[in-house]
Amino acid sequence: MKPYAYGVDIGGTTIKVGLFGADGGLLERWELPTGRVGAQILPNLAQWLLGREIPMEALEGIGVGVPGPVLSDGTVNRCVNLGWGVVPVARNLSDLLGGVPVQVLNDANAAVLGELWQGAGRGRENLVLATLGTGIGGGIVVGGKILSGAHGAGGEIGHIQVNPRELEYCHCGKRGCLEQYASATGILRLAKAQGFNAGGSGTAKEVLDAAKVGDPVAQSVVTEAGSWLGLALSYVACVADPELILLGGGVSKAGEVILAPVRAQYRASVFHGAAETEFALAALGNDAGMYGAVKGILEPE
Amino acid sequence: MKPYAYGVDIGGTTIKVGLFGADGGLLERWELPTGRVGAQILPNLAQWLLGREIPMEALEGIGVGVPGPVLSDGTVNRCVNLGWGVVPVARNLSDLLGGVPVQVLNDANAAVLGELWQGAGRGRENLVLATLGTGIGGGIVVGGKILSGAHGAGGEIGHIQVNPRELEYCHCGKRGCLEQYASATGILRLAKAQGFNAGGSGTAKEVLDAAKVGDPVAQSVVTEAGSWLGLALSYVACVADPELILLGGGVSKAGEVILAPVRAQYRASVFHGAAETEFALAALGNDAGMYGAVKGILEPE
Repeated sequence: MKPYAYGVDIGGTTIKVGLFGADGGLLERWELPTGRVGAQILPNLAQWLLGREIPMEALEGIGVGVPGPVLSDGTVNRCVNLGWGVVPVARNLSDLLGGVPVQVLNDANAAVLGELWQGAGRGRENLVLATLGTGIGGGIVVGGKILSGAHGAGGEIGHIQVNPRELEYCHCGKRGCLEQYASATGILRLAKAQGFNAGGSGTAKEVLDAAKVGDPVAQSVVTEAGSWLGLALSYVACVADPELILLGGGVSKAGEVILAPVRAQYRASVFHGAAETEFALAALGNDAGMYGAVKGILEPE
Repeated sequence: MKPYAYGVDIGGTTIKVGLFGADGGLLERWELPTGRVGAQILPNLAQWLLGREIPMEALEGIGVGVPGPVLSDGTVNRCVNLGWGVVPVARNLSDLLGGVPVQVLNDANAAVLGELWQGAGRGRENLVLATLGTGIGGGIVVGGKILSGAHGAGGEIGHIQVNPRELEYCHCGKRGCLEQYASATGILRLAKAQGFNAGGSGTAKEVLDAAKVGDPVAQSVVTEAGSWLGLALSYVACVADPELILLGGGVSKAGEVILAPVRAQYRASVFHGAAETEFALAALGNDAGMYGAVKGILEPE
C-alpha cells in the first residue's frame, strides 16, 4: 500500500480535505471554499491537490463524499447544492489527477461510515447516524455495510413525512418532513411559530441555549423538535433495528437538552423489541465525512 | 446433498409442512393443527415427521419459521402465539429427530425469503414484503439478505406508530400502530367506526368485497386502510429504499382495490428518489414461509 490517501467531503459552502496515513491516522486537514458551484468544482479541487507537497504517486487513492445520490460506478445523479446534474465524479477527478484511483459516496453515508470506522460507532454492526444541520442527513449501517438502497434513497430520514397534516412546504415539495422540525432550520421555524423572543443572532443555537437555561418557550420548541425526531427514529428502528443511534451535526452539540426529548418519544413510540436501543452523540463532528470517504480506499472490503 | 428437506411454518393455529426436493421443488404439503400450544408443539411435530415415509437419513435438513424473534443460534425469544418463552428450537427439534440439521428463522423473514427465492421477488436484491393478515408482518431484504436487526425487530412494520393521536390501544400496548388500520382486524375496526353495514359474516373480506362493487362506506374504509399502509411504506422506503414492495396475506387478495390507495399515498408521502418503487402482490400465498424456511437448508449462503 502507498503511504497516503485523501478523504474529501464536498459541501455547498466548503470542501473539507484530510490527508491520511496508510494506517488511517489523520495527518493534516484543510477547508477550501467550494466557490462558484458547477463545472469548476472538480478542476479547482484537482488543481489544489496537485499543488500539495504529496505527489500523486504516493497516494493509494482519494475518497470523495458528495451531497447527493451516487451510483455504484461513482457517477453522481443530481447534487442540487453543487449545481451538478449527472456527473461521473470518480472518472473525471481521476482523469484530472493522472489516474489516481477515486471512490465516490454520498456524504451522509460517508459520515456514518466514518463514525463506524473511527468514531462513536466503532465495533458496531448496526448503526444509524442522524446529522442535524441545515437539513437532516441520515446514514444507516446494517451488518457492517452502508444501506444505500435501490435508488440511493436509503437512509433519507430527513424526508420521512412525520406530520402529514403540516401546512407549510418542505423544500422537497412535500409537507411534514422531519427536516421541517428537527433540523437547525426547522427549530428556528418552530421557534418563530411559538413566538420565541429571539434577542440575539436568530440561530437554532440561540433557541437551544435558551432551552438549557430554562426559557419555557425555547424548552417547548426543543421538546417539539426532539419529539418529532424521536418519532421518526422509532420508524427507523421498526425497519432497520440498529443497536446504536448517533446524533450528529450542529443541533446535536446542544447535548442532553435535545437528546432527552428524542429518547423519551422514541421509547413511547417504538416496537417494544427495539426499546433498549442506545443513543449517543457522534464523535467526529464535521470530519466524519472525510473519514468515511477515505475508509474504502484504506480498508476496502 | 441428500435428496429431501422439509420447510415448516409454525403458526398459532396450523403448522404447514412442505417436503422439498434437493432442487427446491415442492413435492408435497400438509397442514397440521398446532393443537394446544406450549411445550408439546415440537414433540408432536417430531412424532409426525418420524411417521412419514421419508427416513431422517434422507433429509438434508429442516427449516422452521416461527412467529417470534429468533437469535442467531436458533433460539426463540418469546413466541406469544405459541406459548413459548425462551426455547432452543433448533437444538430441541434436532435432538428429537436424531440429529437432523435444523435451522430456525422468524416467519415474516421466512416469507420474504420465500418470495425472493421462488416467488414474486425472484432475482431482486432489495425487497419488502408486508403480510396483511390478522396482524401485519414485515420482512425486508437488503442486498439479498434478510434485515433482522440488532434485536430481531428489523422489519416490524406492523408496529410503526403511524398515528400517535389514536385513542384505542394496539395489543402491543401502544396506540396508533399500522396494524390497527391495515390488517384484517384493523379494517374491521375501521368499518365498525365508520358504520359499515355488515350484512354477512363480519369479516374484512366482506368489507373489501363491498368496496369492489362500489359501496361508498366500504370504499372509504379501504381507502383509509390503504392510506395508512402507503404512509408507513413511505417510511420504510426512506430507510431501506427497496426496488419492489410486495403485499401478501389475506387482505392483499382483494388486489387493486387495496393496492390503489396504498400506491397513491405512498407516492404522495415518499422521498422523491424512491417514488418509482414497484408494487406487486406476493405470489406464494401462505406457502411463502415454508419456502423461505427451507431455502437456507437447500441453498446455504
